[in-house]
Amino acid sequence: MVGVNKKKLRIGMVGYKFMGKAHSHAYRDVSFYFDNNIEPVLQAICGRNEEAVKEAANKMGWLSYETDWKKLIARDDIDLIDIVTPNNAHTEIAIAAAEAGKHVFCEKPLAMTLEQSIRMLKAVEENGVIHMVNYNYRFAPATQFAKKIIEDGRLGKIYHIRATYLQDWIMDPNFPLVWRLDKDVCGSGSHGDLAAHIIDMARFLVGEFKEVSGLMETFIKERPVVESSSGLSGKASSNKLEEVKVDDASVFIAKFENGAIGTFEATRFAGGNKNGNRFEINGEKGSIRWDGENMNNLQVYFHDDEPGIQGFRTINCTEETHPFAGAYWPVAHIIGYEHTFINLLVELLNGIDKGYNPSPNFIDGVKNQAILEAVEQSARTKQWVSLNEMSVGV
Amino acid sequence: MVGVNKKKLRIGMVGYKFMGKAHSHAYRDVSFYFDNNIEPVLQAICGRNEEAVKEAANKMGWLSYETDWKKLIARDDIDLIDIVTPNNAHTEIAIAAAEAGKHVFCEKPLAMTLEQSIRMLKAVEENGVIHMVNYNYRFAPATQFAKKIIEDGRLGKIYHIRATYLQDWIMDPNFPLVWRLDKDVCGSGSHGDLAAHIIDMARFLVGEFKEVSGLMETFIKERPVVESSSGLSGKASSNKLEEVKVDDASVFIAKFENGAIGTFEATRFAGGNKNGNRFEINGEKGSIRWDGENMNNLQVYFHDDEPGIQGFRTINCTEETHPFAGAYWPVAHIIGYEHTFINLLVELLNGIDKGYNPSPNFIDGVKNQAILEAVEQSARTKQWVSLNEMSVGV
Amino acid sequence: MVGVNKKKLRIGMVGYKFMGKAHSHAYRDVSFYFDNNIEPVLQAICGRNEEAVKEAANKMGWLSYETDWKKLIARDDIDLIDIVTPNNAHTEIAIAAAEAGKHVFCEKPLAMTLEQSIRMLKAVEENGVIHMVNYNYRFAPATQFAKKIIEDGRLGKIYHIRATYLQDWIMDPNFPLVWRLDKDVCGSGSHGDLAAHIIDMARFLVGEFKEVSGLMETFIKERPVVESSSGLSGKASSNKLEEVKVDDASVFIAKFENGAIGTFEATRFAGGNKNGNRFEINGEKGSIRWDGENMNNLQVYFHDDEPGIQGFRTINCTEETHPFAGAYWPVAHIIGYEHTFINLLVELLNGIDKGYNPSPNFIDGVKNQAILEAVEQSARTKQWVSLNEMSVGV
Amino acid sequence: MVGVNKKKLRIGMVGYKFMGKAHSHAYRDVSFYFDNNIEPVLQAICGRNEEAVKEAANKMGWLSYETDWKKLIARDDIDLIDIVTPNNAHTEIAIAAAEAGKHVFCEKPLAMTLEQSIRMLKAVEENGVIHMVNYNYRFAPATQFAKKIIEDGRLGKIYHIRATYLQDWIMDPNFPLVWRLDKDVCGSGSHGDLAAHIIDMARFLVGEFKEVSGLMETFIKERPVVESSSGLSGKASSNKLEEVKVDDASVFIAKFENGAIGTFEATRFAGGNKNGNRFEINGEKGSIRWDGENMNNLQVYFHDDEPGIQGFRTINCTEETHPFAGAYWPVAHIIGYEHTFINLLVELLNGIDKGYNPSPNFIDGVKNQAILEAVEQSARTKQWVSLNEMSVGV
Repeated sequence: MVGVNKKKLRIGMVGYKFMGKAHSHAYRDVSFYFDNNIEPVLQAICGRNEEAVKEAANKMGWLSYETDWKKLIARDDIDLIDIVTPNNAHTEIAIAAAEAGKHVFCEKPLAMTLEQSIRMLKAVEENGVIHMVNYNYRFAPATQFAKKIIEDGRLGKIYHIRATYLQDWIMDPNFPLVWRLDKDVCGSGSHGDLAAHIIDMARFLVGEFKEVSGLMETFIKERPVVESSSGLSGKASSNKLEEVKVDDASVFIAKFENGAIGTFEATRFAGGNKNGNRFEINGEKGSIRWDGENMNNLQVYFHDDEPGIQGFRTINCTEETHPFAGAYWPVAHIIGYEHTFINLLVELLNGIDKGYNPSPNFIDGVKNQAILEAVEQSARTKQWVSLNEMSVGV
Repeated sequence: MVGVNKKKLRIGMVGYKFMGKAHSHAYRDVSFYFDNNIEPVLQAICGRNEEAVKEAANKMGWLSYETDWKKLIARDDIDLIDIVTPNNAHTEIAIAAAEAGKHVFCEKPLAMTLEQSIRMLKAVEENGVIHMVNYNYRFAPATQFAKKIIEDGRLGKIYHIRATYLQDWIMDPNFPLVWRLDKDVCGSGSHGDLAAHIIDMARFLVGEFKEVSGLMETFIKERPVVESSSGLSGKASSNKLEEVKVDDASVFIAKFENGAIGTFEATRFAGGNKNGNRFEINGEKGSIRWDGENMNNLQVYFHDDEPGIQGFRTINCTEETHPFAGAYWPVAHIIGYEHTFINLLVELLNGIDKGYNPSPNFIDGVKNQAILEAVEQSARTKQWVSLNEMSVGV
Repeated sequence: MVGVNKKKLRIGMVGYKFMGKAHSHAYRDVSFYFDNNIEPVLQAICGRNEEAVKEAANKMGWLSYETDWKKLIARDDIDLIDIVTPNNAHTEIAIAAAEAGKHVFCEKPLAMTLEQSIRMLKAVEENGVIHMVNYNYRFAPATQFAKKIIEDGRLGKIYHIRATYLQDWIMDPNFPLVWRLDKDVCGSGSHGDLAAHIIDMARFLVGEFKEVSGLMETFIKERPVVESSSGLSGKASSNKLEEVKVDDASVFIAKFENGAIGTFEATRFAGGNKNGNRFEINGEKGSIRWDGENMNNLQVYFHDDEPGIQGFRTINCTEETHPFAGAYWPVAHIIGYEHTFINLLVELLNGIDKGYNPSPNFIDGVKNQAILEAVEQSARTKQWVSLNEMSVGV
Repeated sequence: MVGVNKKKLRIGMVGYKFMGKAHSHAYRDVSFYFDNNIEPVLQAICGRNEEAVKEAANKMGWLSYETDWKKLIARDDIDLIDIVTPNNAHTEIAIAAAEAGKHVFCEKPLAMTLEQSIRMLKAVEENGVIHMVNYNYRFAPATQFAKKIIEDGRLGKIYHIRATYLQDWIMDPNFPLVWRLDKDVCGSGSHGDLAAHIIDMARFLVGEFKEVSGLMETFIKERPVVESSSGLSGKASSNKLEEVKVDDASVFIAKFENGAIGTFEATRFAGGNKNGNRFEINGEKGSIRWDGENMNNLQVYFHDDEPGIQGFRTINCTEETHPFAGAYWPVAHIIGYEHTFINLLVELLNGIDKGYNPSPNFIDGVKNQAILEAVEQSARTKQWVSLNEMSVGV
């Protein structure tokens, strides 16, 4: 009975693991919290393993399922294709979906290569469909509020960003070579998985990158072959090792178009950092800090506070005045990771409803891919790489 | 299609504001995250204002609505009555529901007085229905894990608890006398609203109270009459003041049956503390700290850690090993306030499925009420009050 | 050559252990950092054990030593008697010193009983000497700045203080009954040692106490007799136990003359809290927090900050604008525990130089003692005790 | 009378401002806290301005003064020359002192250029004098304890260091071009002042650098000429601007000989960061974090902690077991910035007493200078620079 008189947006989702769960939940919850004109319907979910996809559909509330994504795209009761597959499947599915006239919502990073992402962007643009890429951390109330503070000029000219995304889940050398460590499936390791997020945040809050110098490292050169996987983890084969071709860590320094400079670090080898997506930005009038493990808070410092009373304020961004926060609970009754997906959907549904293309979209996906690739090139050539040299074509 | 083959538990909920929203959401989400044998169905919601309850039903996904709670209880398609009304309606509804053979899930505090709560307990017990009271903060993974640490004997004998629940939302003297400040509707102010929570947490983690000495204070003696209210707030009448009969703050010291001692403070006048539900417990072998504004974390200290390396550890209780946490997201992808309700439902549904009475239930509600009343009596008489003197009858 | 042309204040100090070290160091350092008109001279140190006091004198830079405090007081080359003995010696020495016309600087708590402290006050007042009691925590730049914020009216009317002083150094039941646990030597346990400090801080920042209700507890009822002691610790006798007559913990609630209410807790059984001298104060316009383990910082919250940007600011009180801080190092090059003693000396030397009596002095010492005694009486009688009932006589 | 029977080390110090104060204080205090066999004597202080140096001598307790450093070095009652001048005077004085057979203790960075520092090292080595360079942050008990943890193998192989030194004291564009911004006097800006410290910490804790890629930036290109200066600050000329030739910020990424990688950032434009000297190190078995603004604490994480109870521990490094800490106060009675200098002196005095060369010494100074220069070269050429390419000659 929820949203009984609303326009429906019939979702077809390809994939059903970690991200499939996060997206499914967001589709179910968005109309509970927000008054969009459009209501998503969990029309069909798609996966190659029929037993597994059927169970996922049942568990998560999808009305039907498919085992062939081409059939899913062919269905005329689907309005939007949501791609939550591993990275190596993004391009083909997204282009097919666009060509079939479906809106496309794609997991990040948009593609394995810059070239792929450019083709994807071309497809959605030529077919006039709405497109979005899931850089969900933009949609925490605290990061949205950070954006507002910066846009209101309250930090002034930006001098610095230092951003890290630190995890530690593959530090055990016996952890097997699961798909997220497989170059053919993911394209990269921590780089596309984690660095992509902090690059997006930097673009969102600071602006466009100008040039980068990077370093990528694989600390564990060989790992057991995976026998079976579940969730992010997997069971290791007892006696077969395979070369790890993706990075365990990716660090780089950068210049921005507006004169700011930055340091970036993504790694899966920072013990004790479980989901350390963090940044600090310093401008001429103030600074902000954010930590994704405590994502409701934003630390804010203003230079023009009275001398003696200057200091970082810890703001719990759960008040009516904070973006998206009013839809949830009273102040300091905190929200979590899953709500970033719900908030992003608000933007996606609004875009479709009102006919504008939401952000972040495939253009952001392409620009992000260009930076990822520039860092990789820099790490390979040991040279600074200018973003101008990348054939972005956008 | 979610939970297609499961037994159904058809919910009838009385009330639809803040707590109604939190409960509704939990009913919708619990089967998405957990594999209970029973699935709640949002059968009917009840409120006196037809327009408002109809809109709430539509927004939150209830299948039908009623405007008279007696009719709701009379319906034979309802298995459980959920009471999220103001406190003054709990008793009558709960007793009627129990007498109609419905399970009862009631908001906290269970009643306005100890005597009421005892009658409620008697009703549910005599009618053999399952009963539960919504002390939701027990169900954060971090507080559940705290319980496990204590039960495993890792803190040893408990010496101290210091618990606070600090808010600041009525500090403005022009904030009107909304229902939560109305003695006839709520029975008390910060005491039943906030102290009740930390009393429950202390009972959960430390044990039974033995005696208390308390102090209750009303800082703002008169407030504007409320003209209209929305959410927790309200519009003040311009020129009419009314006496505030409830407490703005409630503090007390306590002895426990097991020899521990405690300090407790609940207030709505602690500026900058938005939802400061916090405790620290010290035992002979270690200590734990928790802060509801950062509810995923638990701070743990062990005396038997090696000298030189002793210190409070900050544990993000989002790992598979932490209670309830495995059902959600990867480690440090945090959850929030609403998930405490979902976790509590798991316990409620299990109890109904397996025929045991879950915790916290009306016995906990009565014992809590006895402590609340002992503190009130102590504040009035300026004497220590022993819990033995309270006519709990349980 | 330091302070070559300054007036000298010749110090005679009785005692030479922990506090003797802290005082000695402060006398040596105060003229290095501050431009007082008076310079202290480490004239003579006194202790009963000649070998030990001689070694202490040599180590800490005292020009001479005595083994009989009466001789020390009799010397005409001594201007001020500094009492750093255990509590049971304070009264006799202070009165004798005052009667000999010496200024008196005494460790806290001022005495074992209220009656003693009143006699001490009478002696210093009748003999017209300057007197001071060492509540050193008032003299952290952060607590001094807290005082300024409150005096400037920036918190408005005060509603709440919650103060704790948490330690854990005697939790081991085999820790022997050292002098700090000996009722004959100290008068009380955590109460006079720790509660006295937070009572002083509350008087300094909030105002005078009106009435109290308290609870004191001894968790470990018997301890090994001490064979030999060093510093705060000691060697336990192997097989002889003795009753512990002092409190391990002391908690109380209080009303203040100005309408504020407070909770207080002092304990040596709060594992993991090494020197947890902390408070939070809430007023109608804002709040402050302080933690002695991170004593350079003050957390400040202002209600009149713009909505959305309200939050506790973490202020590192090491700027020129912060009291005493300018004498030390550049901002955020932090100072420590010992500097509270140095700062206090600035006030003492100024008082002697300019002929006013500094704060905190014996009047503060007496009022503190009255509160300590009221809590003890309350814990004994299980009644609230009004400060008006205490025979303070000041 | 302090240290009456000890060997004396007669100090001659050149310079008397911020660092002169810190060193003077440490000489005065070291024998109070520690039982070295050698006691420093504040024999003579030297500065060009007679009035100012005389006042400094008087204030800080020096026995005599000189206005010509060559005369100071020529005095035969001086055993050690301590150089606390601006960087451009280090080389000449250090070499002259060494040639006169005096031990040399020099402020950091050791020199303006690598070439200078190599000449300095050659001089002290050829003349067989003890030498030390003042990287004082190595001597916080917490950083010393970090070293011990790493040396004990408790972090295992090191993967990452991320280190920052963030300040904000020159963000105002009207702040004048004081000597610390003058390339002729300092050689560089934040680079030699701040980056030098975190480079030293990285060498101390992680090991030798292999190669670096850096970026240096001057945000404010022109500043007012300074008319007069006091402390770190100065008075700006009203209408005369001058080009700023030093860096405002310096960031770089690095590889270490042992395979670890690092990110480094030094800046004076990170608003709200007053003395943000911080690092985190991740190894295969654990991680550590330190923040110089809260320098007593070390955060430590161990992978082999039991699952579910893993988390960063906050250790207050003020216990007997922590290096240097036992000489001061009871646990959690914190120490501050000045104590790093005192602790370093313990090492210097021990070295002189026992005839070994202490660390960090001029070899460390040279290696640090090589890294500073490699980063500068990298920033200029936009190439990675290998430390092997630097003509260190050591």
